[in-house]
Amino acid sequence: MTHRIAVIPGDGIGGEVVPAAIEVLEALDLGFEFVDGEAGDYVKEERGEALPQETYDLAAEADATLFGAAGETAADVILPLREAVDSFANVRPARAYPGVDAVKPETDLVFVRENTEGVYAGIEDDLTDDVTTLTRLITEDASRRIAEFGFEYAEENGFSDVTVAHKANVMRKTDGRFLDACEAVAAAGDYEYDEALMDALAMHLIMHPEDYGVVICPNLAGDMLSDLAAGLVGGLGLLPSANVGPDNALFEPVHGSAPDIAGEGIANPAAMILSAAMMLEHLGYGDEATRVRDAVTAVLEDGPRTPDLGGDATTADVTEAVLDAL
Amino acid sequence: MTHRIAVIPGDGIGGEVVPAAIEVLEALDLGFEFVDGEAGDYVKEERGEALPQETYDLAAEADATLFGAAGETAADVILPLREAVDSFANVRPARAYPGVDAVKPETDLVFVRENTEGVYAGIEDDLTDDVTTLTRLITEDASRRIAEFGFEYAEENGFSDVTVAHKANVMRKTDGRFLDACEAVAAAGDYEYDEALMDALAMHLIMHPEDYGVVICPNLAGDMLSDLAAGLVGGLGLLPSANVGPDNALFEPVHGSAPDIAGEGIANPAAMILSAAMMLEHLGYGDEATRVRDAVTAVLEDGPRTPDLGGDATTADVTEAVLDAL
Ligand SMILES: CC(C)[C@H](C(=O)O)[C@@H](O)C(=O)O
Ligand SMILES: CC(C)[C@H](C(=O)O)[C@@H](O)C(=O)O
Repeated sequence: MTHRIAVIPGDGIGGEVVPAAIEVLEALDLGFEFVDGEAGDYVKEERGEALPQETYDLAAEADATLFGAAGETAADVILPLREAVDSFANVRPARAYPGVDAVKPETDLVFVRENTEGVYAGIEDDLTDDVTTLTRLITEDASRRIAEFGFEYAEENGFSDVTVAHKANVMRKTDGRFLDACEAVAAAGDYEYDEALMDALAMHLIMHPEDYGVVICPNLAGDMLSDLAAGLVGGLGLLPSANVGPDNALFEPVHGSAPDIAGEGIANPAAMILSAAMMLEHLGYGDEATRVRDAVTAVLEDGPRTPDLGGDATTADVTEAVLDAL
Repeated sequence: MTHRIAVIPGDGIGGEVVPAAIEVLEALDLGFEFVDGEAGDYVKEERGEALPQETYDLAAEADATLFGAAGETAADVILPLREAVDSFANVRPARAYPGVDAVKPETDLVFVRENTEGVYAGIEDDLTDDVTTLTRLITEDASRRIAEFGFEYAEENGFSDVTVAHKANVMRKTDGRFLDACEAVAAAGDYEYDEALMDALAMHLIMHPEDYGVVICPNLAGDMLSDLAAGLVGGLGLLPSANVGPDNALFEPVHGSAPDIAGEGIANPAAMILSAAMMLEHLGYGDEATRVRDAVTAVLEDGPRTPDLGGDATTADVTEAVLDAL
């Protein structure tokens, strides 16, 4: 069966790392049909909107989407795209690689971030000239769904530690609801987990990342904690992610469009290629996913390095090396 | 002029580190009048409420308050106490000390956290059995006030880097308001600063803390980022904090009541003694504040160490050493 893959490079280095990932996927010869879509700052300039309806529809109707990055319009592009694929879970593995300088080389974490609500529900009001409010939304359904996903993910991927992040001592009803839902799902599925206040967790993750495995988080906490973990493993250039829905998904690096280095051909394609590996896994190509991951790991260990990892290789050099290692 | 200091040790190690700080203050012989107040889990058990009105009033009417920590009831105790002293700014210095194992020894940061609103405004509703909301509040007045405080603090304390943390790409109106207020204050006072998305900032602080100085934050971001910084410098046992209002203030360590080691006499008193030093500074005893800070620094460098820093000294040993070093 041919899979139709929407390809949305976006802005800046998105346009450099997405083609690298496509090269790797094409080398596997799985007969994917790649269909390009446009989004980002440059589209907004040309057409007045960062995410044209046709790109939204493309992602919604594809079997999976590869997304690069967007610039100033990032939120206008990625938040609707995550919704287009109906993704409720944002899965962000953060692991250190042998050979890559990491603040904490023992890091091997996966953040399972609720992807639909919390402060991202985006309900804001200017009550007066001086008073502005945002409504943070937490529902039972979304909380249970992410908890189920997270516990199952941990089990399937061999993680014994599951932590639920929250701030229920302050956000008593909303994070209390989130926590209760996790507890109910754990009880029903006989899963074990710990809960942790997100502030204390931030500290512990830095001091002892080895004590943690899968971290189930409300939306914004997942955003912050996964970037924190990027700091532990040597930067955003290494973190892939999956936005997973019931029958569609979008894969993107955690990094942004990096305007400072865009156009120089020196962006690290690792996070994007690893995102493509997550897509392979998701589409049922587990062996191919492993091959890609192993190739990237080998190149990170002793292949050419882009400047973010202290080397002077180009995106093309690294991609070439990954292709050779496949 | 005699200062009346409210002393609220609270639960767990609060009852061990607060007396240590008082010993140090008494050695300075400044004629403070210390008045004890009760709060915490043990008070709730005895009287049904964690923070009796008389303790609230004590803090409200004192010249300054020293608070230790509370256990399960932490939020019920500390949030009203911060309000009792009318504190709008939570100042949290996080610096590494020579001799103390730190993930990032070059860390020297001060978080200036908005202390009255954001998600801490605490307005929550169960809309239905399944849907819960929290109203995050950002006002022009509170945002300007914390910005003014933060910029002035940076200037007075010789920090050249000021960063405003936000997530205005998602929380457009609320953090947009926060950001606009900071911009207006900076323009009026001719202050320089950078702004940073709080997720990206979490990563950068871990990788390059030396690039940052004072970080002005909305309430919850300040909570998380300061704990993150604790992770960089060797743990919460080292972070003091001040809750500052127009004419009153409360000083507390960033750590909690640590029930796991409470009662053993091995809690690290450094954060609490450093909080007392912040109080001295605040009350106009700048020289004495420096003496206390220098003494703690000397002891951390080559004095006895409590177990959290890898030693086997007791709270009393460390306090004794600080007194000797004064
Ligand atoms: C661009 C922004 C809306 C996005 C988010 O907050 O989710 C980004 O920070 C991320 O983590 O993918
Ligand atoms: C106990 C809790 C309410 C408090 C907070 O969130 O402010 C604590 O985490 C802190 O940082 O002092």
